[in-house]
Amino acid sequence: MEREKELLEKFGLKKIDEDLYEELKDIHPLFAKRYFFAHRDLDKAIKEDFAIVSGRGPSASVHLPHLLLFDALHKLQEKYNCFTLLVFSDDEKYWYGKANYDDALKYSIENAIDILSIGFKEENTKIFIDMHHMNEKFYKYVVKIAKKINFSNVKAIFGLKNESSIGEIFYPAIQVTHILLPTLLYNKRVIVPIGIDQDPFIRLARDVADKLGIKKPASLIMRFLPGIRGEEKMSASIKESAIYISDDENEVKRKIFKYMLSGGRESVEKQRKLGGEIEKCVVFKYLSLFLNEKEEKEIANKCKEGKLLCGECKNMLVEKINEFFDRIRKNREKVKDNLQNYLLF
Amino acid sequence: MEREKELLEKFGLKKIDEDLYEELKDIHPLFAKRYFFAHRDLDKAIKEDFAIVSGRGPSASVHLPHLLLFDALHKLQEKYNCFTLLVFSDDEKYWYGKANYDDALKYSIENAIDILSIGFKEENTKIFIDMHHMNEKFYKYVVKIAKKINFSNVKAIFGLKNESSIGEIFYPAIQVTHILLPTLLYNKRVIVPIGIDQDPFIRLARDVADKLGIKKPASLIMRFLPGIRGEEKMSASIKESAIYISDDENEVKRKIFKYMLSGGRESVEKQRKLGGEIEKCVVFKYLSLFLNEKEEKEIANKCKEGKLLCGECKNMLVEKINEFFDRIRKNREKVKDNLQNYLLF
Repeated sequence: MEREKELLEKFGLKKIDEDLYEELKDIHPLFAKRYFFAHRDLDKAIKEDFAIVSGRGPSASVHLPHLLLFDALHKLQEKYNCFTLLVFSDDEKYWYGKANYDDALKYSIENAIDILSIGFKEENTKIFIDMHHMNEKFYKYVVKIAKKINFSNVKAIFGLKNESSIGEIFYPAIQVTHILLPTLLYNKRVIVPIGIDQDPFIRLARDVADKLGIKKPASLIMRFLPGIRGEEKMSASIKESAIYISDDENEVKRKIFKYMLSGGRESVEKQRKLGGEIEKCVVFKYLSLFLNEKEEKEIANKCKEGKLLCGECKNMLVEKINEFFDRIRKNREKVKDNLQNYLLF
Repeated sequence: MEREKELLEKFGLKKIDEDLYEELKDIHPLFAKRYFFAHRDLDKAIKEDFAIVSGRGPSASVHLPHLLLFDALHKLQEKYNCFTLLVFSDDEKYWYGKANYDDALKYSIENAIDILSIGFKEENTKIFIDMHHMNEKFYKYVVKIAKKINFSNVKAIFGLKNESSIGEIFYPAIQVTHILLPTLLYNKRVIVPIGIDQDPFIRLARDVADKLGIKKPASLIMRFLPGIRGEEKMSASIKESAIYISDDENEVKRKIFKYMLSGGRESVEKQRKLGGEIEKCVVFKYLSLFLNEKEEKEIANKCKEGKLLCGECKNMLVEKINEFFDRIRKNREKVKDNLQNYLLF
């Protein structure tokens, strides 16, 4: 938290103030629970005809926190009826050694289908997968943008060295093009949801927008959801620490029961007597994202009073996640068949 | 010439030996007159089912020496019935500041049409213009190749600095992809005609081919044709020193009469008495590219004997160039209408 505050100040970011919180809190639990906590120009953007740009570097199947983030973005899209562009940087994952070539190509399509299946509307949502959809229209912008960025501009931001591949060095041009595309194409101001560490990428995109004389993108800064065992974030690259959309119902249950950290005591007796340590409980953190305020309070109280055992909470969470995943799983085939309707160009 | 010899040795290039000269000399005067004078692996390549890759960075209209080069390549294609890929790097010209964005886009198409109009056959010739034709098929190779090249590999070759745009830094990946495409797609060994100074680019492409485990490209090294006023090479960027395909018949005549260096004496009387200084004569150098050996000797003798005045030679050259240009001009509309037939993908 100290680090967060320092970073906000250092980067000149604003916390989401009470006015903005009131405007956004009913959209999705991630807003209500202040997972989205800071921003740059968001107040300005939501007064305009804005667009959302988000996406993912595809190196594995999509996991629960990603899907919850996209669920929140989907609700944001619904509230403001705004254009949403979802980008998938398979090139980046390959260049930065986070996926081999074939996996990057495979997961980019798979991830796009999973994320669209959350419910993003065809008429207002487009996707761009770098290695699958590159074309002359996109490239013409990339070329223009690549000329506005030099090696010094990106060296520190992307951790580049003389030994970095020229793909790694070039990727910022692709990323900035992703971000600025709705502005270049439709003159819309873009909102990009990011982790606070990614702010330098947005500042780069804002500098380029300035050079091109177009609207600068806004950002919405998000806190990570915790990892299944209580780590700071759920990493998609450690198989056992994450719940994937590719996991079936039983696998979701198995992982939650076997791995997910709870605030339970050593024994049922102690739990009954002392109540659960809810502030440590990852199960409760996730469960509360599927509950309204009243339901959440009830469960919290019961837990603290020792009236609820961890297995019961885990079962509730398994049910909620599988309901959420089912909604996605059911849409998959239809989205897959209609994928061409989501193409940007 | 000393510099040439040094460079051949330094780079490990071979001179075209007598066997190879015999094989090639009848293809085109540029071979007969040893404008193509050295190579790397050409002897190997012409024994295989090879492909030619050539093209141009489009910053202006195409000029006479370019067209003569492509005329020679067209004849080479005819003799060996080989696949030919013509690439146009409008992105490079823009990134390296040699053309503004709109000119790069415009001249790339125009140059492609002019060069194809020399007579390259649809069934065996493809073009790829970076900003016009970029697509996912090409990009997938670019991504793979960009990962095999790091900043250190290209820094010296391309004269890159920290202030270079990331477009300039990335361009080698596009260039190597151009060169290796017939090998990647059809497993053909490529022959690339280049100036000797461009050998480092070929070595880079050969290194990448090695890493990819595919056939390494061969090169055919060419001497520049002289500039109109006797400069070492005809530059397309100095309007008055070059004859462009966009010049009409009268403009060709005007430029040759007004600017082209001849070996003529100060006065007709002196010319009649002493003969022309044929070794200095740019008019004769170009004229001889349109003549057979017998015709060339006749003219040389008449000149040296003072029986020929420079105006006569210039008129002959104007006629030859306009015949050559007419062949191209006549094909332009048809090529333009059928341009999609030349697309690689």
